[in-house]
Amino acid sequence: MSPPPASTEELEQELSAATISKKQLKKDARKAEKARKASEQQQQPPPPPQEEEDDPFAANYGDEEIQSKAISGRSWTDIGDVDETAAGHSVLIRGFAQTIRPVSKKMGFVVLRQRRSTVQCLLVASADAGVSAQMVRFAASLTKESIVDVEGIVTPLKEPRKDLTQLVEIRVSKIYCINRAIPTLPLNFEDAARTKAEFEAAEQKGVPMVHVHQDTRLNYRPIDIRTPANLSIFTIEHHVESKFKEFLFSKNFIGIHTPKLIGGSSEGGASVFKLDYNGQPACLAQSPQLYKQMAICGGFGRVFEVGSVFRAEKSNTHRHLCEFIGLDAEMEIKEHYFEVCDIIDGLFVAIFDHLNEHCKEELEEINRKNPFEPLTYLAQTLKLTYEQGIQMLKEAGTEIEPMGDLNTEAEKKLGRLVKEMYGTDFFILYRYPLAVRPFYTMPCYDDPAYSNSFDVFIRGEEIISGAQRIHTPKLLRERAIECGIDTSTIRSYIESFSYGAPPHGGFGVGLERVVMLFCGLNNVRKTSLFPRDPQRLTP
Amino acid sequence: MSPPPASTEELEQELSAATISKKQLKKDARKAEKARKASEQQQQPPPPPQEEEDDPFAANYGDEEIQSKAISGRSWTDIGDVDETAAGHSVLIRGFAQTIRPVSKKMGFVVLRQRRSTVQCLLVASADAGVSAQMVRFAASLTKESIVDVEGIVTPLKEPRKDLTQLVEIRVSKIYCINRAIPTLPLNFEDAARTKAEFEAAEQKGVPMVHVHQDTRLNYRPIDIRTPANLSIFTIEHHVESKFKEFLFSKNFIGIHTPKLIGGSSEGGASVFKLDYNGQPACLAQSPQLYKQMAICGGFGRVFEVGSVFRAEKSNTHRHLCEFIGLDAEMEIKEHYFEVCDIIDGLFVAIFDHLNEHCKEELEEINRKNPFEPLTYLAQTLKLTYEQGIQMLKEAGTEIEPMGDLNTEAEKKLGRLVKEMYGTDFFILYRYPLAVRPFYTMPCYDDPAYSNSFDVFIRGEEIISGAQRIHTPKLLRERAIECGIDTSTIRSYIESFSYGAPPHGGFGVGLERVVMLFCGLNNVRKTSLFPRDPQRLTP
Repeated sequence: MSPPPASTEELEQELSAATISKKQLKKDARKAEKARKASEQQQQPPPPPQEEEDDPFAANYGDEEIQSKAISGRSWTDIGDVDETAAGHSVLIRGFAQTIRPVSKKMGFVVLRQRRSTVQCLLVASADAGVSAQMVRFAASLTKESIVDVEGIVTPLKEPRKDLTQLVEIRVSKIYCINRAIPTLPLNFEDAARTKAEFEAAEQKGVPMVHVHQDTRLNYRPIDIRTPANLSIFTIEHHVESKFKEFLFSKNFIGIHTPKLIGGSSEGGASVFKLDYNGQPACLAQSPQLYKQMAICGGFGRVFEVGSVFRAEKSNTHRHLCEFIGLDAEMEIKEHYFEVCDIIDGLFVAIFDHLNEHCKEELEEINRKNPFEPLTYLAQTLKLTYEQGIQMLKEAGTEIEPMGDLNTEAEKKLGRLVKEMYGTDFFILYRYPLAVRPFYTMPCYDDPAYSNSFDVFIRGEEIISGAQRIHTPKLLRERAIECGIDTSTIRSYIESFSYGAPPHGGFGVGLERVVMLFCGLNNVRKTSLFPRDPQRLTP
Repeated sequence: MSPPPASTEELEQELSAATISKKQLKKDARKAEKARKASEQQQQPPPPPQEEEDDPFAANYGDEEIQSKAISGRSWTDIGDVDETAAGHSVLIRGFAQTIRPVSKKMGFVVLRQRRSTVQCLLVASADAGVSAQMVRFAASLTKESIVDVEGIVTPLKEPRKDLTQLVEIRVSKIYCINRAIPTLPLNFEDAARTKAEFEAAEQKGVPMVHVHQDTRLNYRPIDIRTPANLSIFTIEHHVESKFKEFLFSKNFIGIHTPKLIGGSSEGGASVFKLDYNGQPACLAQSPQLYKQMAICGGFGRVFEVGSVFRAEKSNTHRHLCEFIGLDAEMEIKEHYFEVCDIIDGLFVAIFDHLNEHCKEELEEINRKNPFEPLTYLAQTLKLTYEQGIQMLKEAGTEIEPMGDLNTEAEKKLGRLVKEMYGTDFFILYRYPLAVRPFYTMPCYDDPAYSNSFDVFIRGEEIISGAQRIHTPKLLRERAIECGIDTSTIRSYIESFSYGAPPHGGFGVGLERVVMLFCGLNNVRKTSLFPRDPQRLTP
């Protein structure tokens, strides 16, 4: 049984992966037009406060332009660092104005946010503090999400506030607006940031809450990515990539870069973007496959690459993108492609351990937004043969064509069966039928209907494909022809194996998918900063 | 005065950057055809040695296929680790057969190479050692650059050999050919690897030596990159990138990835590759500029990106590529774009220090191949205004249009003047005329004819461009229109600045250029694994 989607929001987003409603598109277009007009109006400088001349404290507030006029020597404190230890001291901070709350003519609050940290700033008109009623009014007139500088004394909060990360308040002595946001944003930060618990609480009280459509989020991504959950997703993505490189470097791999503009198609198939390259027909690489293999022929021993991968996919699913980041590795093998599996085992266990240890807060933020079960994995990764997998499915009532491939549904089911039986969300399935693998895959020595290949799964979704590759030009050419590839377009690739080529294998992973599945997210668009799918080319 | 090119090889390569001779193209085509035929012939299995059945030691040599049959539990030693400490012990190694030297029917040498390490293997027919005359003949029949396994006892060399990295010899007891190279390679390893000193020694003796044309190298890149100097170049490239990321992460930057497929052109201009994106007109990003700025609007604070950059350049120069790796960074600034310059100062000094400390051997390899002066740089990077630069040139007799840009020649000259006067190959030139900078560059507050921008130079060549960026939508739109950009294609970019946008600045660097200039190389094609220039799309 497939688990039910966790919330209305998720349901909407699942739907949105499959189709963008015309209504939504129109709505977004109206919003965009409104935003454009508002932005033009906003460009008029705000009217100067009438009382400015009468205000002895006029220098303590106002709009300020940052144009590299001078270096004042003042130093700004990160909002995340403003805590009890600074109590009684003056600090200078800059942030997005998340909340503006006037209380009276003489008092008001502004909450500033920097990355995932928020702090409350209190303005109280007082001649002693150099704060005028005009200054309080100025603060009240700020628009949400404007960039604001505040100087003031740090004071502990009387009681902790669940909606703020910092347990102190700043008694404002100076406040400047650095860059004003338009008054009506096309997407409200609070709506974008609202957590599952907040939705449920509102529902219980019968208060209607805005559910932000996935496409609206993506259309106004510079606002959407300000939310704590989204900042956390991209921080985790950074960590996955860093750990990938660090681990492989420690195992004697070096990082390379291979061309994305290539003649011919990298691995055949229809899903390739074509273009004109100074008069020559060219296409965008669907993977660094052929080039990372040529680096191995070049004697590099072990290589990895982190780079853009392009697929002219037509399929609108929750897991396909037309452009994504590939984490690829290729290595000499001495005897057996299990040497590659061993690297994957060590690498991914190291990545998962690292995330659980070093990204606790980020995982909690994501969990608050969309609750998920932590990934379970074994210290030594489970390996099953493809035949064993099929047998497990058969015993559970799902018949699979033994020499065919698993479809998404069968993969999901197998993931659940493996979890029940072995207690892991992460496992390797190896010895796939040759017919379902790319032409450069090495056949099995004992049965050429099978191949020295494997896939790796997280939560029942395939995230890694790998194999031993063919390293002799004769077999490589034969297999390419059998698979219907025009060998003239990959001539230099095939010939590389005539110049002395070590036996080798490797694998490729999609960065966005790893993060999506580790964090239990339901859509790969959530883990791509500016996703590209069959419809979306902007922003 | 421009320094004369150091060697005939360099002269040839300088020429080759400007034009590929038709003669050379034909020659390469002939070579390729020959290689293809040879490769097909080579596919016939080598005739079995006639005496095989009579040889009691037949199991100790022969051709072996690596197809993941079994895991033997044997362990291979890296050739670089085979040294005196292993004397008297048996080791198992795998490498490219660099030299095959039969001495007699009963004795022969094979030199094996793994990455930059080489070791001599000695075969002497002897019943005690399990080595037959047939086995010596088998070794003599190996082709250069074949992949070979050797097992044997480590013995110290009687006297060190300049042409080998390991000071020991292996007395072979077993030898297997894992993958045979064609007998006539299109590019000989020795020719590709020959150093300046070797060329000079040969010249003195009047022995003619093959100078390998740059295009031949690139056509057969999987052989060319096996040379110690080339492996060193790409190792250094890996280190530059790693240090870039490590340093910026330590300064609170996080790594992001932005789309390379975009609607509109990223920064205007003609040099853009166009393509069809599922029915929508699209192009390849000429830089991550607009997207990394949107990440700053998204509250990320400080970001960097390492990724592919595409320029449909028509210019065939030593420093332009159609595809290269951009190292980009963008950060909030509090007051002044010198905050960005400070990051660059710390970052590049850290990178240069790291290379000098951790890549000594690699730098020596490159220096042996093409001698160069080590880069001189100051602990605190020199900053000069553009006007000061122009004044220095004027005083040295070169007149520059004060509101124009520096051409390549003037940049080179300024580099020499700065080196003479300040003793550094690395400096920042800032406050460029606004007219020569992109539309998103912030004008100077005191004179809008100038801009808050800078370039950074290594050895008189520009490698980094950076600036404070405009962060208000009104000015940004105005400047885009003034620069002739169709603002409808960058609407979401401009609108991002209406939603609350912090003041910010950043910079971009070409990875290949940094390595080229640090290592005193004369052509950026040498630092790109599979370079793309106006003609070259393959391999």
